[in-house]
Amino acid sequence: MPSIFSRIVAGEVPCYKVAAAERFLAFLDISPLTKGHTLVIPKQEIDYLFDLDDDLHLGLQLFAKNVALAIKQAIPCTRVGVAVMGMEVPHAHIHLIPINKEGDMLISNPKLQLSKEEMAQIANSIADKFS
Amino acid sequence: MPSIFSRIVAGEVPCYKVAAAERFLAFLDISPLTKGHTLVIPKQEIDYLFDLDDDLHLGLQLFAKNVALAIKQAIPCTRVGVAVMGMEVPHAHIHLIPINKEGDMLISNPKLQLSKEEMAQIANSIADKFS
Repeated sequence: MPSIFSRIVAGEVPCYKVAAAERFLAFLDISPLTKGHTLVIPKQEIDYLFDLDDDLHLGLQLFAKNVALAIKQAIPCTRVGVAVMGMEVPHAHIHLIPINKEGDMLISNPKLQLSKEEMAQIANSIADKFS
Repeated sequence: MPSIFSRIVAGEVPCYKVAAAERFLAFLDISPLTKGHTLVIPKQEIDYLFDLDDDLHLGLQLFAKNVALAIKQAIPCTRVGVAVMGMEVPHAHIHLIPINKEGDMLISNPKLQLSKEEMAQIANSIADKFS
């Protein structure tokens, strides 16, 4: 069965899209730790980040960097933190999390409850800064 | 004043070295969340990861991937997690953390207390797998 992220790539499941490229996609985490919390994935379904071949891996990292720069412009924050754990969805994904202090990145923190309108507005504001 | 990591690069402060390359260094975190918790840095002192130019950034990511593959071979774990926060030391660093569940990566977890001998043994076991 395809991962939830492959179903997003296929357009079968909606997402708040932030950026897209031929091989990569970025969209908002629907259970965000902070406003602007974004997931960056390869469209190809590979479970473990370090199983990506070097070309795909470095392409993903460059795409993620450009998404992070857009997040930093769109969302008030000190910096954009990075986390890769990957236990819950078997499809490699990089968390990009706008933070003002290290504790903002604690995955045990309560998740934000944002309206659909606010999620769409956040995604659009980041997408506007993505180049 | 140079960062603690620049002082490690300069050899003024000791570390448990895991891997080195012309522009990059990997060594054990002295306050590890799990055995094998490693920091990967560019030797050049740049505070924020996403301020590295693309060439240096992608070189760092490729080096970090190879270190992560070595950690996975040397340390019993399900996978190697990645975290970049960077609030404490103003010198970009990627945490590579061997994990068996997502909670292993919580930065609020108590840190391990390992002997010098055990730290050296862990560093050597990862270094042996690095290519």
